[in-house]
Amino acid sequence: MVKFNARGLMPPVFTPLNDDYTVNYAAITPYATFLAKNGIKSVLVGGTTGEHMSLSVSERKKLIDKWVEVGKTHGFHIMVQVGGAPLADVLDLAKYCSKAGVDSLLTLPELYFKPQSVSDLVFYVELVAKAAPNLPVLYYHIPSMSKVEVNMPAFVKEASNIISNFKGIKFTSNDLSEAAQVLRVLKDDQEMFLGADSLLAPAALLGIKSAIGTTFNLFPTLAQDILNAVEKADVVQARALQEKLSLAVEAHTPEGPWVPIMKAGMEIVTGIKVGPPALPQLPISEEAKKRIETKLKALKIIN
Amino acid sequence: MVKFNARGLMPPVFTPLNDDYTVNYAAITPYATFLAKNGIKSVLVGGTTGEHMSLSVSERKKLIDKWVEVGKTHGFHIMVQVGGAPLADVLDLAKYCSKAGVDSLLTLPELYFKPQSVSDLVFYVELVAKAAPNLPVLYYHIPSMSKVEVNMPAFVKEASNIISNFKGIKFTSNDLSEAAQVLRVLKDDQEMFLGADSLLAPAALLGIKSAIGTTFNLFPTLAQDILNAVEKADVVQARALQEKLSLAVEAHTPEGPWVPIMKAGMEIVTGIKVGPPALPQLPISEEAKKRIETKLKALKIIN
Amino acid sequence: MVKFNARGLMPPVFTPLNDDYTVNYAAITPYATFLAKNGIKSVLVGGTTGEHMSLSVSERKKLIDKWVEVGKTHGFHIMVQVGGAPLADVLDLAKYCSKAGVDSLLTLPELYFKPQSVSDLVFYVELVAKAAPNLPVLYYHIPSMSKVEVNMPAFVKEASNIISNFKGIKFTSNDLSEAAQVLRVLKDDQEMFLGADSLLAPAALLGIKSAIGTTFNLFPTLAQDILNAVEKADVVQARALQEKLSLAVEAHTPEGPWVPIMKAGMEIVTGIKVGPPALPQLPISEEAKKRIETKLKALKIIN
Amino acid sequence: MVKFNARGLMPPVFTPLNDDYTVNYAAITPYATFLAKNGIKSVLVGGTTGEHMSLSVSERKKLIDKWVEVGKTHGFHIMVQVGGAPLADVLDLAKYCSKAGVDSLLTLPELYFKPQSVSDLVFYVELVAKAAPNLPVLYYHIPSMSKVEVNMPAFVKEASNIISNFKGIKFTSNDLSEAAQVLRVLKDDQEMFLGADSLLAPAALLGIKSAIGTTFNLFPTLAQDILNAVEKADVVQARALQEKLSLAVEAHTPEGPWVPIMKAGMEIVTGIKVGPPALPQLPISEEAKKRIETKLKALKIIN
Repeated sequence: MVKFNARGLMPPVFTPLNDDYTVNYAAITPYATFLAKNGIKSVLVGGTTGEHMSLSVSERKKLIDKWVEVGKTHGFHIMVQVGGAPLADVLDLAKYCSKAGVDSLLTLPELYFKPQSVSDLVFYVELVAKAAPNLPVLYYHIPSMSKVEVNMPAFVKEASNIISNFKGIKFTSNDLSEAAQVLRVLKDDQEMFLGADSLLAPAALLGIKSAIGTTFNLFPTLAQDILNAVEKADVVQARALQEKLSLAVEAHTPEGPWVPIMKAGMEIVTGIKVGPPALPQLPISEEAKKRIETKLKALKIIN
Repeated sequence: MVKFNARGLMPPVFTPLNDDYTVNYAAITPYATFLAKNGIKSVLVGGTTGEHMSLSVSERKKLIDKWVEVGKTHGFHIMVQVGGAPLADVLDLAKYCSKAGVDSLLTLPELYFKPQSVSDLVFYVELVAKAAPNLPVLYYHIPSMSKVEVNMPAFVKEASNIISNFKGIKFTSNDLSEAAQVLRVLKDDQEMFLGADSLLAPAALLGIKSAIGTTFNLFPTLAQDILNAVEKADVVQARALQEKLSLAVEAHTPEGPWVPIMKAGMEIVTGIKVGPPALPQLPISEEAKKRIETKLKALKIIN
Repeated sequence: MVKFNARGLMPPVFTPLNDDYTVNYAAITPYATFLAKNGIKSVLVGGTTGEHMSLSVSERKKLIDKWVEVGKTHGFHIMVQVGGAPLADVLDLAKYCSKAGVDSLLTLPELYFKPQSVSDLVFYVELVAKAAPNLPVLYYHIPSMSKVEVNMPAFVKEASNIISNFKGIKFTSNDLSEAAQVLRVLKDDQEMFLGADSLLAPAALLGIKSAIGTTFNLFPTLAQDILNAVEKADVVQARALQEKLSLAVEAHTPEGPWVPIMKAGMEIVTGIKVGPPALPQLPISEEAKKRIETKLKALKIIN
Repeated sequence: MVKFNARGLMPPVFTPLNDDYTVNYAAITPYATFLAKNGIKSVLVGGTTGEHMSLSVSERKKLIDKWVEVGKTHGFHIMVQVGGAPLADVLDLAKYCSKAGVDSLLTLPELYFKPQSVSDLVFYVELVAKAAPNLPVLYYHIPSMSKVEVNMPAFVKEASNIISNFKGIKFTSNDLSEAAQVLRVLKDDQEMFLGADSLLAPAALLGIKSAIGTTFNLFPTLAQDILNAVEKADVVQARALQEKLSLAVEAHTPEGPWVPIMKAGMEIVTGIKVGPPALPQLPISEEAKKRIETKLKALKIIN
């Protein structure tokens, strides 16, 4: 019986690149140390933030191996997102993960022959889950990118019935009403990870305590402080801290697409060089970085 | 200088109909008394719940007069939604309201020649605002119905610059991240009314304390209790009460479109007969009403 | 038994406005004469081009009366579009038309409580059809504006079964594949009017010979020449003439929304003053008009 | 200077699979012979019909090699679609094709980090084009699947300016108005291939004479006869033949998604076994195949 025990805040890790777009594997060790020092206990490898949808299978496997190797030294739970590629490759990656020391899988839906119904989507996730039957498998709901708009409460109910190692979802949407409905149908050993950094506090009020958010790379303690404030019923503090995180995000958003601005922000805030985004995405300009830095200083988020 | 002082929970009132689809004006007096007895201080006349988008201008005017007359006896703030009709009629209604004792206006966007930009939408709301320059005017954001998807923080900023009696928005969307951004750009005498009954508690945590929600007709004290719990930082209670309200809503939603199910629910929960929805909407079946009733009893929301 | 015999090219007439936005009823007589002299046999009053979705019911009735009065002198078939307003007003207009000498009705779908299915839409059109049981009633399919995306072949089949005076549709979409499917399910006394001026020739090849297009106001003989070329199997000529009409349209499209550019074009091409669009739409600039004129001269469409 | 000379009807070839989902390479030789005997001069390998978006890079390379090898014996122009995978793999495939004897490339847009503008899309296609600078490169516009909705006339203009080996597009959309606009901006050595089998005749009337359509596998001579009828200005015959092809397609469409129904149809019509669709797509039922067969017989398309 497959167990799934990752809970709480999980940063989706960036894939550090050199300026020539090769993967900077050496950067992963200090990056992981930074996260561990800031209280992080689990990471997602290969999410949107990690841009594995732009990489080859062999690069993805090397990154998985590196994160397993480095992550183990910190006791991290390693979740790997295997989707965002042709199904043959997704299944290959799932099988690889089942033997590579990975702790759990996450999968996007099919991106081309898109599922049109709950049962289409369950069938796809089932194929992935059967390729790694020893691992917990979660579904990555991110309709803004995948353009797959299946109703999540209905999907979770059906997937739980049919797939024995189905253990939850990443819910990347601002619709907390739907998220609350998912929460109600989850079983004990399943979990929903919110992917909406500006809604951590209100989600926590609804009982949603796990999240996967890019900003946990930049502000890992701030995100945790938000959850703690809600836990202690300090509503005023929760609101103030959420406002701080949300404003930090909004300092970035006018400057470009999500991964390019967040990779820039990571270097500005933490000094860790994660390099340019993987092609076909492009880095933001130096002027844009300056504007972000100026705003973050004005918000006293950095010095 | 136009002042706008409505705050808190405002039910959008149903338009009571007889079985022959004529308006049941006589039902308004006891309905208003019921709301007043349950602590309600303001009402929205002519919203989605009131179905004025299905009525003629003359019926709308009579309903406005009736609600002003009856509402005054309870000291209600009367907000009237004037949109959802050809612009000539919207302007006629706005002018009528400016002299009819109405306290504030709300307007949908143009439904046919839809605004494509912030400035298109500001221009429309400005036309309405100029037709009632003595009244506070708010914009009704409900993209699920209007299919107008203008960015609200940008709209509010621009409308506030250009329209002197622009006093806020009704925000009918589950995207609390965008709502929080609106909140940041509102001025002191402006207000945002959330239109998402299943998100009252999380919104309140973010500082959103006003709302216009159909369920305040059915459960006026429950909604207020949710806000009070957040105000008192009783997170556990806020979550439990929100869950109760959300489950009450979900007892209805599988049975049909919003207004038909809510009109049915109003009779089941309060005994007040609001009749069938206005054509072209149709009432739900007796079997569907029974299912709602059974679920509400199981939830101990009704006896 | 209701008969419907309008066929061929039908211009949707502009509503001439004065500069103060009042209706210029006097302009209708010479306008109708211009159309009649150019071979037009039928007109649509109150379509998108006529902007009745922006007008009051009383203005719409006066316009209907005027077009019936003037149109009769030319033997025009008068089709009136009655939708685009609250249902109460739509039904009032339909009843009015049934006694006003109008020859057929066209109706948009409900714009706010939008139909979600074929049966919802059939129910709405049935309500309109019953309000004018002596008139042929057609449905106005224009998903780009109405955001109602019901499958037309399925709708036409079902509406034909249920509504005895249902006589066809206006199909305003560039999807000729769906149009061809509609054509297959139409009965003898039903008709589909294409609303896609740049596709007259290819549609005619598929057997679609009726159309309602704004440009028939500007270029009534050119549009007829296109149909004649296809009828005579002169493919080379059909292509050349269609290209001419399409390029004439594209001379306008960069300058703004459809009705404002077409009202400007009407004056440029024919000299008939139809004035500004009805609010909330705005006229295009003088510079934009100049650019259109320059392009039309370069195309030798005007001198 | 790269030359591109494929014109006319090009079937996108199915990927024959065995019942265990392995590729049936042996089936390609007789399949190519069938196409050649029916007058086909060029094929697209790896399109939607070929389901390469579900296959691994190594399988795709083997399929490319096999089609080059077999296709050469028939003098086929071999176009290969390289997109629908992470960019690293797309570039790898493009480089491979540049040395493998392939004649031209087609590429989907990025499926995950979707282009938001003309320039985003030009940048992506430019990356692919630079990876195979000796080959003509075309863009695969199929918004129904890719959910990338960039304006094609604007894209083609910009791509032609920037990418020296950009040679056209496959236009899989029913909007012949936009297609006609593309046609106007194409240069002499560029081509647009329509991907809308039910619109071959009307497109030909507009001057669109090349197409890539799944049904050219099933009915290669019928499709050619349609083009010939338009060429000879036999409008009546063109309409009748188009109607025949469209009805043949509609015999399939109620039974499932495009590739599963077309793979079934291929076996029913030609007897060539192309097997089940690649996972995650599923074959249609035997009952569905029977219904298709019955309809095709009733249409006298098969005996």
